[in-house]
Amino acid sequence: MSQPQRAPGGFPVVGIIGGGQLARMCAGPAAELGVTLSVLAEAPDASAALVIPSAPVGSHADLAAVLAFARDCDVVTFDHEHVPAPVLAALVAEGMPLHPSPAALVFAQDKVAMRERLTAGGIPVPRWTVARTEAQVEAFGAQTGWPVVVKTPRGGYDGKGVLIADQPADVRDWLSRPETTDTGLLLEERVPFVRELAALIARSPSGQAAAWPVVETVQTDGICTEVLAPAPGIDPALAAQITATALRIAGDLGVTGVLAVELFETPEGGFLVNELAMRPHNSGHWSMDGAVTGQFEQHLRAVLDLPLGDPTPHHPWTVMANVLGGDDEEIYSAYRHVMARDPGAKVHMYGKGVRPGRKIGHVNVSGEDLGDARERAGHAAAYLQGSVRE
Amino acid sequence: MSQPQRAPGGFPVVGIIGGGQLARMCAGPAAELGVTLSVLAEAPDASAALVIPSAPVGSHADLAAVLAFARDCDVVTFDHEHVPAPVLAALVAEGMPLHPSPAALVFAQDKVAMRERLTAGGIPVPRWTVARTEAQVEAFGAQTGWPVVVKTPRGGYDGKGVLIADQPADVRDWLSRPETTDTGLLLEERVPFVRELAALIARSPSGQAAAWPVVETVQTDGICTEVLAPAPGIDPALAAQITATALRIAGDLGVTGVLAVELFETPEGGFLVNELAMRPHNSGHWSMDGAVTGQFEQHLRAVLDLPLGDPTPHHPWTVMANVLGGDDEEIYSAYRHVMARDPGAKVHMYGKGVRPGRKIGHVNVSGEDLGDARERAGHAAAYLQGSVRE
Repeated sequence: MSQPQRAPGGFPVVGIIGGGQLARMCAGPAAELGVTLSVLAEAPDASAALVIPSAPVGSHADLAAVLAFARDCDVVTFDHEHVPAPVLAALVAEGMPLHPSPAALVFAQDKVAMRERLTAGGIPVPRWTVARTEAQVEAFGAQTGWPVVVKTPRGGYDGKGVLIADQPADVRDWLSRPETTDTGLLLEERVPFVRELAALIARSPSGQAAAWPVVETVQTDGICTEVLAPAPGIDPALAAQITATALRIAGDLGVTGVLAVELFETPEGGFLVNELAMRPHNSGHWSMDGAVTGQFEQHLRAVLDLPLGDPTPHHPWTVMANVLGGDDEEIYSAYRHVMARDPGAKVHMYGKGVRPGRKIGHVNVSGEDLGDARERAGHAAAYLQGSVRE
Repeated sequence: MSQPQRAPGGFPVVGIIGGGQLARMCAGPAAELGVTLSVLAEAPDASAALVIPSAPVGSHADLAAVLAFARDCDVVTFDHEHVPAPVLAALVAEGMPLHPSPAALVFAQDKVAMRERLTAGGIPVPRWTVARTEAQVEAFGAQTGWPVVVKTPRGGYDGKGVLIADQPADVRDWLSRPETTDTGLLLEERVPFVRELAALIARSPSGQAAAWPVVETVQTDGICTEVLAPAPGIDPALAAQITATALRIAGDLGVTGVLAVELFETPEGGFLVNELAMRPHNSGHWSMDGAVTGQFEQHLRAVLDLPLGDPTPHHPWTVMANVLGGDDEEIYSAYRHVMARDPGAKVHMYGKGVRPGRKIGHVNVSGEDLGDARERAGHAAAYLQGSVRE
């Protein structure tokens, strides 16, 4: 039985296209709000399908499957940004409320469209261009200096679809791909940033918005491994400016739901916008335990056009450490050590099979002392992924 | 498909007999821990069945149904205390780990057994006796004074199964019931208490225990309507004594999982134990938002014999207000007002149909000021149940 079962009392059904961990982590908040979830899942054992009763299996690219799925929902939102434009257009033609709308979502789907739009809006971004030939790559490198950051406009995540080129020849393979003729490659200057930051906000269809504090994100090999909330020692004026920028982007682009803006802090004390994501985001996982309203509850409230919840942190510091798949497929037996060592560690696992480097869970630790919280969250995550055993 | 789907990584399946809101509120914490839940539900639309994929329908009193259900689980616990002794015995005979064990659970199932055991252990309780005749009732009333509190030994909850008798004749109907011949009625002195308190602890099979702060519970017509955490102004020595008593009861009785001890605070500054519940309890709902580890996560950790989580409160005060069913079957439209008025109110609804006086949800509010938190939680709950509309 895959049809969502409505609760009595007039509660709606929220559909989520995609059954990854972001859909999964909506399950708890939805149950508490009394809202029914339905997930269009990639497989019967998708992360979200393990915990949500209504999880029909189908592809986000299959128009018929998506339409059949959406007809049982009152509003539809997304676990990822990979739903093709024609599928989105068909949903809109059916009158299905989509959050974010396709008109906004395109700026999270297509990095070139995003760069164009932000540049036109006067938002600070790294210098960029679109290249289809080695000569164009060479010209851009000559202008910004090497190395140059090369990105596929669509489909990248967790370091995939990103290349650091030291010379034009490094891009030759990517330039020769058939899709490059069509879309080109996005070239960006390599920003000599001090650190990476993220701004997370939520915006409702009525236009209400709420912002969590700006956080610092730590990446390892292109994958986010740690988030510090709030960003330690950040100039309050810079934080305010970043939050205002994120709110402006959300308003200008008409984003509904959660919006994550990933940024570089520059040596001059300013910032440049790196990426946008229009859904709950890894940089906001800390809020599940560290704020009055976590990002998954807030996303549901936003897409339902309910008044937004208070994003205030509970504690001076919350640190999130991602658990990445290691060599060991067994995870559960690590719980005994992790929980005995640290009764305050909040462990979140996604029900996903282990593959090296795959995000399979995260740990949040809140407290008064940043160093202590980092050590605790980092140790718990490392122990769960098997990279430390003491 | 009703069989629980295991997550990869060695994670266990926890079975819960009964599909009420207590089972439902385990869903979020179980999803985050990566633990699979399976619920033996009263009906396909039971509160927990709406949010948990594995929810076979069957009666807790049906031996075959319970055994078939339990065979898919690694450990079994309970949403309520109504599973009959022969069913529990059959589970034990099969080698199924049950938490709490039948040997402990009997003291939550049978109020006479509980009174006998606590009395023998020197735990302070109201004066009590068992009566089968009007003459016995009259003798007890003559000894303790009128009115007398009359309870059916089994099956009562939320004020059901409790009678306040002003004279022996008030008990005549209950005495004439066939089951009274068998079990008798429990008579208790009416304690002139100052207020009602509750101690909530968790204990694991390994014997580790953790205690939340002692709370004050406010009852209206025998139904808990408000919980103040911690109990305002409580003498720290009294609170410590109550917590020690709850821990001692859990150890003496071999309770595993969450134990709630309901108590009366006496005018002399002491306490008397009123009731025991061996499962997550209404008096602990505040901990879902108000403590580092909420009672539903803690119950799962305890029944899995995992190290227990930190029960420390996040805030000086958390107030829980129950939402009781009113006249209006529509609930969701009240969200707009409730959430707009108070972005910090944490709303929990159970997916249950409205019946007057039925517990259908609750609201938690945390903060620095008790009066403010009470007003906010109370208003939100009253608005959701339709008893105020402004």
